[in-house]
Amino acid sequence: MGKVYLVGAGPGAPDLLTLRAARLLEEADLVLHDALVHPDTVALAKRARLVNVGKRFGKVSTEQRFIHRTLVEAARTHAVVVRLKGGDPMIFGRAQEELDALAAAGIECEVVPGVTAALAAAAALRVSLTRRGVARSVTFLTPRVGEGESPSRWLAAALASDSVVLYMAAGAAREIAQALIDAGKAACTPVALVESATLAQERTVFTTLAGLRDAELARADGPVVMLVGEVFRESANVALATKSVAIGIASEG
Amino acid sequence: MGKVYLVGAGPGAPDLLTLRAARLLEEADLVLHDALVHPDTVALAKRARLVNVGKRFGKVSTEQRFIHRTLVEAARTHAVVVRLKGGDPMIFGRAQEELDALAAAGIECEVVPGVTAALAAAAALRVSLTRRGVARSVTFLTPRVGEGESPSRWLAAALASDSVVLYMAAGAAREIAQALIDAGKAACTPVALVESATLAQERTVFTTLAGLRDAELARADGPVVMLVGEVFRESANVALATKSVAIGIASEG
Repeated sequence: MGKVYLVGAGPGAPDLLTLRAARLLEEADLVLHDALVHPDTVALAKRARLVNVGKRFGKVSTEQRFIHRTLVEAARTHAVVVRLKGGDPMIFGRAQEELDALAAAGIECEVVPGVTAALAAAAALRVSLTRRGVARSVTFLTPRVGEGESPSRWLAAALASDSVVLYMAAGAAREIAQALIDAGKAACTPVALVESATLAQERTVFTTLAGLRDAELARADGPVVMLVGEVFRESANVALATKSVAIGIASEG
Repeated sequence: MGKVYLVGAGPGAPDLLTLRAARLLEEADLVLHDALVHPDTVALAKRARLVNVGKRFGKVSTEQRFIHRTLVEAARTHAVVVRLKGGDPMIFGRAQEELDALAAAGIECEVVPGVTAALAAAAALRVSLTRRGVARSVTFLTPRVGEGESPSRWLAAALASDSVVLYMAAGAAREIAQALIDAGKAACTPVALVESATLAQERTVFTTLAGLRDAELARADGPVVMLVGEVFRESANVALATKSVAIGIASEG
């Protein structure tokens, strides 16, 4: 029986992979990876059979059940199986379903954490998500709601936290800004958008909730992270004062 | 003029450093590092002069002003200056003060994100911090409050979020459990404590808010992360059903 490693590939740039993840990829017999993982990262797995199981913008959608079955079968015939996920496995990665499926099959599993997109976005913006006297809490959330889930839950979390990072928010950025204002968040609350964090095509924009609500948005080419909070005020003021900001991202989910 | 890199060293284990951070340490002329960064990580900086500026359990406390002054002076006389911080620089790392000091001195700066302690703790517990239908938000916060700050702010964030990870909570774990119960969080809410995540001496414990409130706590030897939320229920139930859990950590901040 082999072992499955749930490995975070980091936020985009291949060199933001951890040393442990790089070593496991080199040792791997089989790698199941998401579509958004950088090709240079996947290429580290020189010995491995590669299986692309990614979902990207809803175009390629591999059933989660297929992933579970492939992982279980792979662990029965290979020593080192790597399940490579963008960012960190434990943040919006559906890791629990895979961990539970492996546990049910009696297969040993280990999780290797990675750099999640929110931290890459903060690094790109050069704004700390926490700051003494300004922000003692930062919330990562998704505004996506499933059947039977209440949208008021993510709104409440967004209102109560000092800094907020929204994952999978592109495609609904204007509606999110409106919902936050409607729920009582000040329209002048600073907002930052980061597209394709850490990659060559990275783009960053500062605005406000009102600015975002009223913006014309173009299609985003890569994943977008939306950040909201007072920690961004100074950077947003500088950005808005020194140039007219084109908000050309965040319209596509 | 040199350049300063604010680099995340990751949660503890040296191989949870990113490839980029490892390369920068090898190129560095001068490294200012926190006390909690693993010696093997610091040892990657073969060429560099090393300055330990860490604060650990209040025993060693170097003034933040000294750090700022040292970084600015170092950048004026060295090409590659690395400011190495435990975890990720942008989460509870006082990075903004250092970024602002460097900007004020006209020194170029870049942030290299790292794996933050919460993600290492989730990996150790093998519990995803988000889960469809259960947790769409996860909040990282510290219950520490400064002068003029209201404790009700972190409590509100903790109540509104589905999953909560408390940093710098050791030393007050019982009081935090009581405060969360008093604020309306169910006493049976699952809790996990992780000490020295990713290191050989890593310890994990599952309990509930009521269990933690009533526990006898021993002194922790390393950093402790406290995690609260329904995502831990299954693991907590299994742990509590299969053995009597000794909560021997989290009493020292």
